[in-house]
Amino acid sequence: MMTLSLIGIGCGDPAQLTRAAVVAINAADLVLIPRKGSAKSDLADLRRTICADVLTNPATRIAEFDLPVRNAGEVDYHKGVDDWHDAVAATWSQAIENHLGNDGKVTLLIWGDPSLYDSSLRIARRLKRLPTIEVIPGITAIQALCAAHALPLNDIGEPFLVTTGRRLREGGWPQGVDTVVVMLDGGTAFQSLDPTGLRIWWGAYLGMPDQIIMSGALAEIGPRIVAARQDARERHGWIMDSYILKRRP
Amino acid sequence: MMTLSLIGIGCGDPAQLTRAAVVAINAADLVLIPRKGSAKSDLADLRRTICADVLTNPATRIAEFDLPVRNAGEVDYHKGVDDWHDAVAATWSQAIENHLGNDGKVTLLIWGDPSLYDSSLRIARRLKRLPTIEVIPGITAIQALCAAHALPLNDIGEPFLVTTGRRLREGGWPQGVDTVVVMLDGGTAFQSLDPTGLRIWWGAYLGMPDQIIMSGALAEIGPRIVAARQDARERHGWIMDSYILKRRP
Repeated sequence: MMTLSLIGIGCGDPAQLTRAAVVAINAADLVLIPRKGSAKSDLADLRRTICADVLTNPATRIAEFDLPVRNAGEVDYHKGVDDWHDAVAATWSQAIENHLGNDGKVTLLIWGDPSLYDSSLRIARRLKRLPTIEVIPGITAIQALCAAHALPLNDIGEPFLVTTGRRLREGGWPQGVDTVVVMLDGGTAFQSLDPTGLRIWWGAYLGMPDQIIMSGALAEIGPRIVAARQDARERHGWIMDSYILKRRP
Repeated sequence: MMTLSLIGIGCGDPAQLTRAAVVAINAADLVLIPRKGSAKSDLADLRRTICADVLTNPATRIAEFDLPVRNAGEVDYHKGVDDWHDAVAATWSQAIENHLGNDGKVTLLIWGDPSLYDSSLRIARRLKRLPTIEVIPGITAIQALCAAHALPLNDIGEPFLVTTGRRLREGGWPQGVDTVVVMLDGGTAFQSLDPTGLRIWWGAYLGMPDQIIMSGALAEIGPRIVAARQDARERHGWIMDSYILKRRP
């Protein structure tokens, strides 16, 4: 029997760990830590810090493994993702076989929450030997962003849309909502919108010591965010950011 | 100087508390626990349990107070909410004055996360003496629901909408999305939809010992959820549930 525990660890601040996450980490026989290359080494470091910080079970082993790199040259986006998930699943299977064998509880520490713009649940279902899957929820970047701005996400009784930078750029302001959360924006897709009547609440490195937040009328603050983002990205070598847009109808 | 700390405590399982929440509770001079009447006494009980469980600071006081009841007879929904928020703010101000005076750190334990379908942030801005506001994010029912079902919320690179039962009932399936999260549904608004091609992931009392989850094709599972919900509501005297709908385009 193999159990795979996908544990949400929040988005940068080890204090965002839940008590359930601490228990689950200590219940693991094996914690797998992916290495994604130097650009994202801060993320692997956070996982190491968390383990060093909360692991009290001497029987829990930690093993690092190299994640395969996605083929950015693949023209078909969905095929590229599909192939990459297969490759990641093969790497997980191999790491589990090497370090654990056929029995036990293996754990992956998932940035944010395993349900939100994360593929671990999909990859887990491609493993050679299908494990029992357990999910421990974690604080997402959306929640950290709202907390940093002391911002209520939805208006009273109103809906909101969570979408990606790509979607916003291609489709413009979505129909039927006045609040939009934008994730996975490799650029600054808000620049593609007419800023009239829009406000933005932006954050990068949320929960981390280098957290930056900015908010205000998009027309005024948008250009400043673009500049701050570029500057921060150059200094760090990477950036993870997200933002909320609201329009007053 | 007054600081108001709004602490997300998750949606029913004390193990969902984050380490930051535990620190913040112990940093408080005063923890205010609202009483909402017998129907929701389980919620006040959870707050008491959490305090008993994690509070180690002997200087932190706990005080309970009665929340005003919303005027359900008010025809104008927004006016009803507005009046109620004023009344709640007055109650908070009074409780703070009675138990703390003009200085210190007061804490409210917020079901789920303070940013999501919760009005504490809005009410806080109506307090007679405006405090510094601090938000500690907590696990939401959406995350607990996804975790219970081991379900990825979004499809790859796709958006999702979070909305209310009322909106779903009035507006039908929202445009431009294939994934919809429904919160605050006092009934079973999914019954108003044509179930063809829809799947549902439903959960009630998420994270609590009495958690119930059901999932499947809406046409088949929908009626069973309606029955299970009614039964559970009668047994408990109250119910809190939410669900995710997906359509395969």
